[in-house]
Parts: sequence; structure tokens; C-alpha cells
Amino acid sequence: MNNFNFKNPTEILFGKGQIAEVRTRLPENAKVLFLYGGGSIKKNGIYEQVIDVLEGIDAVEFSGVEPNPSYETLSKAVAVVKAQNINFILAVGGGSVIDGAKYIAAAANYNGDGWDILQGTQVTSALPVGAVLTLPATGSESNGNSVVTKKSTQQKLPFSSPLLQPQFAVLDPEYTFSLPSKQISNGVVDAFVHVMEQYLTYPVNTPLQDRFAEGIVQTLIEEGPKALKNPQDYDTRANLMWSATMALNGLIGQGVVQDWSTHMIGHELTALYGLDHAQTLAIVLPPLMYVQREQKQEKIVQLGQRVFGLEAENQAQLIDATINAVQSFFEQMQVKTRLADYDLDDSIIDEVIANLEKNGMTQLGEHQDIDLAKAKQILTLAL
Amino acid sequence: MNNFNFKNPTEILFGKGQIAEVRTRLPENAKVLFLYGGGSIKKNGIYEQVIDVLEGIDAVEFSGVEPNPSYETLSKAVAVVKAQNINFILAVGGGSVIDGAKYIAAAANYNGDGWDILQGTQVTSALPVGAVLTLPATGSESNGNSVVTKKSTQQKLPFSSPLLQPQFAVLDPEYTFSLPSKQISNGVVDAFVHVMEQYLTYPVNTPLQDRFAEGIVQTLIEEGPKALKNPQDYDTRANLMWSATMALNGLIGQGVVQDWSTHMIGHELTALYGLDHAQTLAIVLPPLMYVQREQKQEKIVQLGQRVFGLEAENQAQLIDATINAVQSFFEQMQVKTRLADYDLDDSIIDEVIANLEKNGMTQLGEHQDIDLAKAKQILTLAL
Repeated sequence: MNNFNFKNPTEILFGKGQIAEVRTRLPENAKVLFLYGGGSIKKNGIYEQVIDVLEGIDAVEFSGVEPNPSYETLSKAVAVVKAQNINFILAVGGGSVIDGAKYIAAAANYNGDGWDILQGTQVTSALPVGAVLTLPATGSESNGNSVVTKKSTQQKLPFSSPLLQPQFAVLDPEYTFSLPSKQISNGVVDAFVHVMEQYLTYPVNTPLQDRFAEGIVQTLIEEGPKALKNPQDYDTRANLMWSATMALNGLIGQGVVQDWSTHMIGHELTALYGLDHAQTLAIVLPPLMYVQREQKQEKIVQLGQRVFGLEAENQAQLIDATINAVQSFFEQMQVKTRLADYDLDDSIIDEVIANLEKNGMTQLGEHQDIDLAKAKQILTLAL
Repeated sequence: MNNFNFKNPTEILFGKGQIAEVRTRLPENAKVLFLYGGGSIKKNGIYEQVIDVLEGIDAVEFSGVEPNPSYETLSKAVAVVKAQNINFILAVGGGSVIDGAKYIAAAANYNGDGWDILQGTQVTSALPVGAVLTLPATGSESNGNSVVTKKSTQQKLPFSSPLLQPQFAVLDPEYTFSLPSKQISNGVVDAFVHVMEQYLTYPVNTPLQDRFAEGIVQTLIEEGPKALKNPQDYDTRANLMWSATMALNGLIGQGVVQDWSTHMIGHELTALYGLDHAQTLAIVLPPLMYVQREQKQEKIVQLGQRVFGLEAENQAQLIDATINAVQSFFEQMQVKTRLADYDLDDSIIDEVIANLEKNGMTQLGEHQDIDLAKAKQILTLAL
């Protein structure tokens, strides 16, 4: 096992009606930015619940955070925060709204253009953030990570700081009942790939982390299709929600090596062609497994045997069967796995590669051995 | 899944050499109580490492905390803390020293006899605690729980508060290399039973918590015997250490019902006859599973099938086989499972039952249906 320092101080408030706890978790004299997205919370009653909780508390609403939160929109929120001396960001939504809240929290306390932070300037101060999660997927509610897109330059970049870890996160499974099935599909694929980025790597001797990772994806495989079939099944939604949080709250990634190349290549497909984040992951992961089959062989075989219950005559066949099983699961979750499914052909490849190069993504993977040539190979297999 | 609120703010500092991090984690102007046990840290070099880290920091040593930390000894430490205005407790040892540190931390800030806290007075203030773990077993390094024994009345009682959660915990697997094998044996059994108290209960629909629990005990079953055989194998010790922490850091107990009757009955055996904590658990759990086989049937079967890979012609046989497998694992770990192994016979039963009654332990288990008659049945089967 590798050395690690790990702390996750986010308080999880899990279950029906937990929104009521938010009031006691806000600091005294809070002046709150109530941040949300496109307004679905106004249709499903969550908006009213938040307004109730904020009664008597000084709060300013800011809506319109996009599915891939943009620097352009978030900068307007930063201006509001600065002008009105807001001291707490309450994010109500999915990973995009929470990621956006983290950017606002950091940029509001930064003396300069917030985009610097996406380009490597370290976060040294941030406003406190709280989250009310409406979409189980990214794990952003319980980590210090964020991804922001600059529309003007078609760049989608991640940043991270322990200072951005939400102080609390409300996870009410009932909040997911009204989600469009596409969002559940995307969320399950996103959480699945988060686990793979931390598990499907060059093996370190960490049997407990392995089993936790396998436990999460087994749960996603069992509960994901049920969640599509029975949208009002509380326990199914609860199990998905908890799995998605556990997939990226830091736990399973301690003591191991991590990959994240699927995400980095996927980000370019979103930045350039507007594909949903999860769609890009479903496209990139299977061919990436294929191209990295030697480096990742031990873990691919373990995944196939333990999670998918596969057997085969030899290791090569088992690896092929495991990659197929992953791809089939994405398809079963109604997420397409080919560039062609989105009318993208080989004419895009050079553009993606150029963007990877521009963003410094030229040595990806847990071995830093996914160079631009390999990325090209992966994208070609994804056609 | 049941509703829950969960936060674990302890910073885990895991791996070789992590003791060096302690210095930066102590508060400014810290006046430290350096608390330890019987002095084994003076033989294995850990004492010197702690002294190095505390160089230039105002610190007072207090040693002699017993394996079951006593109110009598800890009260002396509380007096030192109060007299010398100590503001930080650094526990260096196993669960007993860390449990003791928590008692000192709470009693030092309590205006009255600290034993009140064991009898139900809530902790409203406590000094900060940090832990350097030398023995993987109790999970005390990453939770707010403590158990203290009053020798004069032969009472061993638990208490708990989020205020007692250590701020940091150093987990250096090398610190376990010099442990006597008995301590490894006891630690593995203790961690195993911690998982069972949270897993082997009336089932709630929580597949992820189930799999995490199964992952921990599978790891203990694999690594425990290896740890006895190869005491200097770093990865084996690391995997055990992390498993023991994860067994009782709150994670697997969220959203489920919990039992803890094996612990409560076991505590009386320690208080009255001085058995090691883990020895009492190994004695009590198998007959408790037998007596509660109907209430726990679904989980016992799941444990047998998933963890021990058992098959049987019918459910009754599978339950019997699973109970046998648990008992055999304890024996394989060199921990005896019968009262007779410690020269205790049926003459003790009434005394144990009387102590349970005195301590209010008359409705134990996740259904509160383990009354004194059932406790008697369990102890009789344990002869």
C-alpha cells in the first residue's frame, strides 16, 4: 500500500426530509448565495423546500448554472458574491452546480481572474460551501474537486483543493424521483467510471480498496437498471445515491495509483462537441481498456471474474470478455458507446488531439504512458 | 436504507514515517499530554520517535494506561491535565490508550466526577485528541467511542461523543512489526466482530454497506493468518491496519441497524474475570449467532455464501456451517472460543447475568430482544 493522508470532513445528511437539517448547519450571520441550475428544482418542489429552510436568512438566488458549468456564467455569480458580501454558497443541484459553487467559492476569495485557478494557481482561501444533491453521479458533494469549462476557448479543466470540500451534503433519494431517465443513466455511468479510474490500474497490494471498489460497481450494476425501471423505488435510489458518493469521496483511491485518463480525454469531447460528460466516458473507457490491456491486465481480469462472474479459456479472452461486459453495461444503461452514435467520425480526431496537447494532457494514465499517439489509437477504436 | 448523519473528520496519516506529520498537526501553543501504556513503545523505538516529534513542544508524559483502561488510573491523568493546564492529548498505543485519552479529554473539561460520563452524562466539551496507533484492532483511532473500566465496582462501560473523535491518527504498519502474535490475533478477532455487530443484523436494503462489510472480513480472513506467519510483511500489516480502522470508523454502520450485544456481554467477562476483550468476543459471538439464528438468518446465510463460499443442502445446515466457519476462523487466529478454555464453568453464569442487570444491559441486540434469559442461553452454549 502507498502512503496517504486522508480526511473527509463533509457531513452527509442522508435520507428523507434531511433538508430540514440545513438550517442548523449554516453559520451564524450567514449571507447565502442560493445557487442552482436550469430550474428543474422549481418543478419538483425542491425549490420551495430550500426557500422554507432559508426563511429569515439573508439569501440571494443565482440560477442558470449549465450542465458543464462555464467560467462565463460563474464569473457573473462571483461578481454578485463580491458585490453583496456573501459568505456562504449553498449549491442545490447535481455535480455541475456543486462544481460551480466551488469555483465561485474559490474565485470570490481570489484577487485576480478566477480562470488562473484552472490553470494551476493554488486555492489558498475559499468561502464555505454546502450542497443539496439532486442527481447522484459526480461525487462532488463530498470531495474538493471541480471541473469548469471556458466556452470562449473550448477548454474544460479540473481543479481541486481540500478548502472546497462541502461542509455538508444533503442526500435525499426522493429528490431523484423526478429525474429524467437520461440523468440516471449518465449518473450511473459516471460513478462506474470514477471507480474504474481508481481501481483499473497497475495493481498495488490493497485488497480492501479493491473490494470496496468492486462493491460499488456491483451495486451500480444491480441497482442501475432497477432505477430506470422503477423511478419511485426509494431504496434503489438510495443505494445508487450512496454508491455514487462513495465512488468519489476519496475513500477507494487511498493507497493506490490512479488513472483519470478516460476523464481527461472525455473532457475534450465535451468541450469541443457538447457531449454529456458520461457519454464521453462510455465512449472512451472500453477502447482505453483495450489499448492498455497489458498494463491493466491483472485488474481487468479481477474485474471480469469478481464483478461480472466471467470465465474464459485464457487470459486474452477473459480480458476481451470483460471489456465487452463493461461496454454492454453502458449500453444496458442506455448510454451509447461509439463516436458514430453522436455523428462524429474520424475527422474529429486531430482536433481532439490538438486540444489535449493545448491543455497539457500529453502524459495521461497511472503510468503517464498514454501519450497523444495512444490517445489517437483510443479515439480511433471508439469510432 | 435508514436515514443517517455521518461525518468522520479524523485525518488518517497512513504509512511509513508518517509520525513526522504530527508536529504540524498540533495546535500552536500546544501543551501536550503524551499518553502511553505499559512501555512497549520504549522497546520498539516508537517512544524515541515521539520524543523527536515533540522536541521544543511543551509536553508531559503519562504512562501506565492498562489494557482495559481504568477509571482509577485515568483519574490520575485527569488531575495532571488539570494541574498543568494541558490542552492536547496525544495517545500513543492501541485502543486502550486511545480510549483512555478520550476519557481524559472529556473528564478534564467536566466539572465533577468523570465517571458520571460513563453513566450517561453527555460530553459537552473535550480537549482535542491525536492518536499514534501501534495496534490495529479497535478502530478507536478514527471514531468517538471509548470504553472504560471501574476496577472498584467491576464495571466496564462504553461512552461516545463526536467531540472525542481524534483530530489525526498516525497508522504506520511498521509499528506493528514487533507486536506479540497474541495482540495481532486479538486485533483481527476484534475487528472481525466489529463488522459483525453492524452486518449480522436484521437486513435493511443496503447492498453497498453489506459489500463493504464483507470486503473487510474477507480481507481479515486472508491477511490475518499471513500476519501471524510473516510479522515483518509490510503490506499484510498495512492491509490489516486499514481493515481494522474501516471496521469501526462509522462507515459500514450508516443506514443499517446495529447489534453490539456480543460486546456488551463480552465486557462483563472482562470486567469480572480479566479476559482479553477479543477473547470474550470469540467466546460470545458463535453461540449468540446460534441463539439468534432465526432473526439473523438472512445475513448469516449471506455471510456463509459470500465470505466463506459455503454451500449446503438446506438453510439450517448453511447457518450451522457459517457459525462453525466463524468459530474456526477465531481458532485459526489462535483465539480460543470456549469459557472452559479459560477455566470458567457454569458457576460464573449467574454472576455475569447479575452484572448485565446492574449495568442496564437487559435488552440487547438490534431488536432489543436479547434479554437476560437469552444471555444465559448464550453463556451456557459458550461453556
